[in-house]
Amino acid sequence: MTTRTLVASATKEHVIALDAPFTIIGERINPTGRKKLAEEMRNDNFETVERDARAQIAAGAHMLDVNAGIPLADEPAILAKAIRLIQSFCNLPLSIDSSIVAALEAGLEAYQGRALLNSVTGEDERLEVVLPLVKKYDCCVIAISNDESGISEDPNVRFEVAKKIVERAADFGIGHERIVVDPLVMPIGALSQAGAGALRLVARLRDELKVNTCCGASNVSFGLPKRHALNAAFLAMASGAGMSSAIMNPLHEEEMIAIKASDVIAGKDAGCTRWIKRFREPNASNETGDHRSARRRRRAS
Amino acid sequence: MTTRTLVASATKEHVIALDAPFTIIGERINPTGRKKLAEEMRNDNFETVERDARAQIAAGAHMLDVNAGIPLADEPAILAKAIRLIQSFCNLPLSIDSSIVAALEAGLEAYQGRALLNSVTGEDERLEVVLPLVKKYDCCVIAISNDESGISEDPNVRFEVAKKIVERAADFGIGHERIVVDPLVMPIGALSQAGAGALRLVARLRDELKVNTCCGASNVSFGLPKRHALNAAFLAMASGAGMSSAIMNPLHEEEMIAIKASDVIAGKDAGCTRWIKRFREPNASNETGDHRSARRRRRAS
Repeated sequence: MTTRTLVASATKEHVIALDAPFTIIGERINPTGRKKLAEEMRNDNFETVERDARAQIAAGAHMLDVNAGIPLADEPAILAKAIRLIQSFCNLPLSIDSSIVAALEAGLEAYQGRALLNSVTGEDERLEVVLPLVKKYDCCVIAISNDESGISEDPNVRFEVAKKIVERAADFGIGHERIVVDPLVMPIGALSQAGAGALRLVARLRDELKVNTCCGASNVSFGLPKRHALNAAFLAMASGAGMSSAIMNPLHEEEMIAIKASDVIAGKDAGCTRWIKRFREPNASNETGDHRSARRRRRAS
Repeated sequence: MTTRTLVASATKEHVIALDAPFTIIGERINPTGRKKLAEEMRNDNFETVERDARAQIAAGAHMLDVNAGIPLADEPAILAKAIRLIQSFCNLPLSIDSSIVAALEAGLEAYQGRALLNSVTGEDERLEVVLPLVKKYDCCVIAISNDESGISEDPNVRFEVAKKIVERAADFGIGHERIVVDPLVMPIGALSQAGAGALRLVARLRDELKVNTCCGASNVSFGLPKRHALNAAFLAMASGAGMSSAIMNPLHEEEMIAIKASDVIAGKDAGCTRWIKRFREPNASNETGDHRSARRRRRAS
């Protein structure tokens, strides 16, 4: 029985599941490391937020992550405002992203629908304040597999942390289908077995905890050249191993193509109709059907 | 214990194994569907053969497949001649490819080293003539999982055919480590579950028969647009599921990059040194490290 994680906006439901297309959660609305965006959001200017939201929707995101982590700002208020604004023109379900509990709650209060809360960890203190919110707002939650001792390099330890979160959630009446585990993929450049370990961990989370999983797609390639190609291969392999979603930049074409191709390979694109619609362009023959060169040809003509 | 399939030329050994980099077997030396090459080989002209061999070596093939299947020609003589010629300048182990038993034997007779014979099927008649050759020449063999009844669409039936071949080989004293099973990947465009079924079959072949596996990499995408991207995702996912080699065109950059990336992700590229060597170019920053654009920049400067 495939685990189905149901999220929703006011008007649209989305299911994260292994027998559904891989869920793409747009990561762009996040001021971390984006000085200009942070300044805008601090000054009640949501122009870039709206532009980023629309661009990610157009690129094929299934959900959008919204983060308002700006130092010394009123994060709960800004996050709530961003969510209201985005929901005024975007019907995709949102992921409400903060490390501050008050901001998570403000976001949930502002949100219409069934959100994905990002996130809870295995730290006891965190579990005891975030899980009651998940229960109160009947939402879903991303569970990050670290705890008080930090992030273990050992995938087996990270599995145990995830298991602890799922068990504690059950005490609150929150089923495993409402928990999406992030197994925390380490950079392979620093730890050469990080990729293999993450793939095995994803399979264990699927088989033993029966949870859906997600990841930040780009961490795996940190510090290495040609990162998009590594991310693309990782996403295809992770999808094959049982990962069901990623928080990523849907404007990165190489990763998006790998995910759409992995949906085809895994039989999640019935009749290959989405693939064919996306890539069967009038000018593109079967052999030269490269998306970018087809675009170039159109421009040239 | 990882199964290690050892092949060799006169001077160079190569191991096909799951803990080694994914083995790339160059497919180009094959006159099927190449009229000009067929005419050349029929007329004792091996210029294209040599050029194709050198191009595939330069592109990073670990082995080369050699086929001389030309209608109404003396295939055993041509195949033997091609093999002698290629071995005069190429030290990669070869795969000797024919559907005609006399050609397989002529190829083995001409070959110096421990070849990969391509192929035996599960047909009784075929097993009884090819396996004695594998035994006599102490070589390895590709086992194609079809039999008298053809190619089953059911992966479980194909598993049983592979199992039968492995068991019959054991009767001849040929260990499973000398057999590389081709699970026969169907086109997804015709059979939407073909990819998912093939991935599960690869995992079963690895876990239950403990054999190495290979495939023709491009069949999966037959009839669909943007085939290279599908092949690339399939190869990454197949490698993740336990496939250890493919017969493919090493000049196709998209597939090669996916395989090299999957080696990194799976921890088969120690210290990521091969990846870094290949893609860390002087002009390529971490973010813009695209191989082709870096080449374009060099040409432009």
